[in-house]
Amino acid sequence: MAPLAAAQPRLTPTATQAALDALKQLLGDRFSSAQAVRDQHGRDESWALPLPPDAVVFPHNTEEVVEIVKICAAHGLPIIPYGAGTSLEGHVTAVQGGVSIDLMQMNRIIQVNAEDLDVVVQPGVRRKQLNEYLRDTGLFFPIDPGADASIGGMVSTRASGTNAVRYGTMRENVLALTVVMADGRIIRTSKRAKKSAAGYDLTKLFTGSEGTLGIITEITLKLYGIPEAMSSAICSFNTLEGAVNTVIQTIQAGIPVARIELLDDVQVAAINAYSKLDMPVQNLLMLEFHGTESGVGEQAEMVQSIASDHGGNNFQWTVKPEERAKLWQARHDAAYASKALRKGCEIMATDVCVPISRLAECILETKEDVEKTGLIAPLVGHVGDGNFHLAVVVDRNSPMEVERLEAFNERLVHRALRMEGTCTGEHGIGKGKMKYLTAEHGEAVAVMRAIKKALDPDNLMNPGKIFSI
Amino acid sequence: MAPLAAAQPRLTPTATQAALDALKQLLGDRFSSAQAVRDQHGRDESWALPLPPDAVVFPHNTEEVVEIVKICAAHGLPIIPYGAGTSLEGHVTAVQGGVSIDLMQMNRIIQVNAEDLDVVVQPGVRRKQLNEYLRDTGLFFPIDPGADASIGGMVSTRASGTNAVRYGTMRENVLALTVVMADGRIIRTSKRAKKSAAGYDLTKLFTGSEGTLGIITEITLKLYGIPEAMSSAICSFNTLEGAVNTVIQTIQAGIPVARIELLDDVQVAAINAYSKLDMPVQNLLMLEFHGTESGVGEQAEMVQSIASDHGGNNFQWTVKPEERAKLWQARHDAAYASKALRKGCEIMATDVCVPISRLAECILETKEDVEKTGLIAPLVGHVGDGNFHLAVVVDRNSPMEVERLEAFNERLVHRALRMEGTCTGEHGIGKGKMKYLTAEHGEAVAVMRAIKKALDPDNLMNPGKIFSI
Repeated sequence: MAPLAAAQPRLTPTATQAALDALKQLLGDRFSSAQAVRDQHGRDESWALPLPPDAVVFPHNTEEVVEIVKICAAHGLPIIPYGAGTSLEGHVTAVQGGVSIDLMQMNRIIQVNAEDLDVVVQPGVRRKQLNEYLRDTGLFFPIDPGADASIGGMVSTRASGTNAVRYGTMRENVLALTVVMADGRIIRTSKRAKKSAAGYDLTKLFTGSEGTLGIITEITLKLYGIPEAMSSAICSFNTLEGAVNTVIQTIQAGIPVARIELLDDVQVAAINAYSKLDMPVQNLLMLEFHGTESGVGEQAEMVQSIASDHGGNNFQWTVKPEERAKLWQARHDAAYASKALRKGCEIMATDVCVPISRLAECILETKEDVEKTGLIAPLVGHVGDGNFHLAVVVDRNSPMEVERLEAFNERLVHRALRMEGTCTGEHGIGKGKMKYLTAEHGEAVAVMRAIKKALDPDNLMNPGKIFSI
Repeated sequence: MAPLAAAQPRLTPTATQAALDALKQLLGDRFSSAQAVRDQHGRDESWALPLPPDAVVFPHNTEEVVEIVKICAAHGLPIIPYGAGTSLEGHVTAVQGGVSIDLMQMNRIIQVNAEDLDVVVQPGVRRKQLNEYLRDTGLFFPIDPGADASIGGMVSTRASGTNAVRYGTMRENVLALTVVMADGRIIRTSKRAKKSAAGYDLTKLFTGSEGTLGIITEITLKLYGIPEAMSSAICSFNTLEGAVNTVIQTIQAGIPVARIELLDDVQVAAINAYSKLDMPVQNLLMLEFHGTESGVGEQAEMVQSIASDHGGNNFQWTVKPEERAKLWQARHDAAYASKALRKGCEIMATDVCVPISRLAECILETKEDVEKTGLIAPLVGHVGDGNFHLAVVVDRNSPMEVERLEAFNERLVHRALRMEGTCTGEHGIGKGKMKYLTAEHGEAVAVMRAIKKALDPDNLMNPGKIFSI
């Protein structure tokens, strides 16, 4: 097994200790340098090797975050925000040492503004917790990245997931943020009005900044009314083209599908085994419709008709909550199902996203590539957005497999870029995709760096993420 | 009549002339320093006094913009991008002198990607031109600020208008930008994928930056399928509360209205006179529904039922295109109708936006305030978003009236801010609202300034807008 990735501590052990002493004095038993706690905070759910921070702190409010940041700034100690630990590109690894700010004790739902369809939360609120809390109001927050992530983490990585095709990503659903800047100033990026043309859109700048510009301590999110009716459907296809073309036509026809997910035959077989289902081992589309009673029926019929034009078969739809829940649970278990394919192996999740017109081409070339490499790599996709993942199952102890994986991912990213796509649809850059950022954005990365430097001149905020310095 | 506002030229006349000579050499007859051309480019449709630039240039492509920017940067000459001239806060006035870059000859629709529901355009394309071009594709671009603005201008001011309640603002509908930075570098902010988590969201940062961070030379926009059916409706209300509460319940019920506009009785009377209509002189809601044949009927019925619970009367709806066109033309003529109320007077348009739960309260307090001042100020509102305008009719030659107007607008802005709203829902800060930016954003303005300084250290890009220096 490979050792921890190479950390390059910013400070000497003595300087670090001075900073930690000050933090401990501030927070008492909400400061920890225990090895187990540090280990837990140096890892996420990614392929990246863990790198524990020097200590972990657990603030309760914005003012405590300010004090923590001021101490770190005074000592030059890096600061790494930590949420649910479900990120997928090593976002929380302490590449230059430093303190992990665990925001999960800041988990209050501060204010539900039902009339305005918005809610103000602390960053440690998890998405399932939020939706349970909201249930009685008839409202919900739709963004669903699969994992029960923290809202703060979802903002930071500009997360999306299965519902984005209808409700957008975090980009479209964050209204305002409170942020503690690198020098300890507190800013509020926006008021609570639904729109504004007042100055630069800082809300969007911080959304997706992966903790590199400041610590998010309060978030205002858009909410939606729980639809009157919801139905789910599945449909199998002999060919990938048939499935993807069904998606393209559905989107173009303006059918407001709430979810439209693709699973390839490899993934379906894995899920059948793991979730004890007996779906046909073909390419599968899983759909969800939100609307009125009559609307969801109308939508399902329209998609069924499009699907049958493209060789879709076994179209089944249901409004029964328990059947729907089982179906989507199976979808969410896809990664575990993939992991179960080879004992002792790990999963590396790819994440390209292309214009939907190029999706079939991109997926087909990629499947051929997978075949050539001999890797096992079930495919799932938020195909309404042109985004798909391969869960590449790899034995980390085999240098040959790891090398093959890395070369494959590199080809995949460059294939997506050639097709006007992105190296990451929803996971973020983190530590894992820094080298692709320049390939994707070219000179624009210099503009991003200039902003980073202007707002965090000492590079205290999650250093070594997004940018390599 | 007041003179031109006080310009504070950045350069001496000699230094300016040297820069202009270089620009003339570059562009030949696409350079003009004729007084009439300069005058035209120093004014928009706002209350702000005009300030002509030293010259105007008419580039044809991104590369020419680069050359222009490099010449200006070398000489320290300010650069002011100019589109259709329909901005409303003095965005194009040359407060420190400089050259106006008129982008209207860059008016090519570069590429329609029908399958991907997007289009790539140059900044000088106007929104009506775009929709005429798109008609045969079955697609349209929904953002409609009223004026036939340029797409570049709409991006720069983060415009919205009547359709935003359903389709969002420019914030939600710009996918990618090509920008010439202050040092002449060209950047592309994003690829064409529908979503991405790759680095800072520069697209959103430039959207609404009002020409202060760079010159936008290419824009990728989202498109939508032209709805199968469209219908319009009007409904009158004795009380403003009744109208506004109808809006709130409609939005909360999740009815996907495409437009929901409020006109107060003063505005209705003005439109009746100007557009030769005979609507009841009451508070009026104007609505539009997009969807399937059955869907638009269903939506209209639901809104009618909500309206009648709140004292709505005379609910009329139509699917006839000519009736619909007449209705919306009347809405778009509201400003002219207001202006026609007092001969020789001008219009100053206010633009606050508040959370919808505070809308009735904000409008009612404002109407009382109008009454006290004795000003004539018809009200129209994109009320589904909480945004409303008063077209205050003022004789600029009366210092007393001007003073009264300014005091009124200041009270209005602070009222909106108290209610967690914004000083500008869609017009932008420009020159007219700089003093309110800090009142709204506090410390966040320092963050905006830091970004401005990092990307435009010599303050060449539209200086004196958004920020006072």
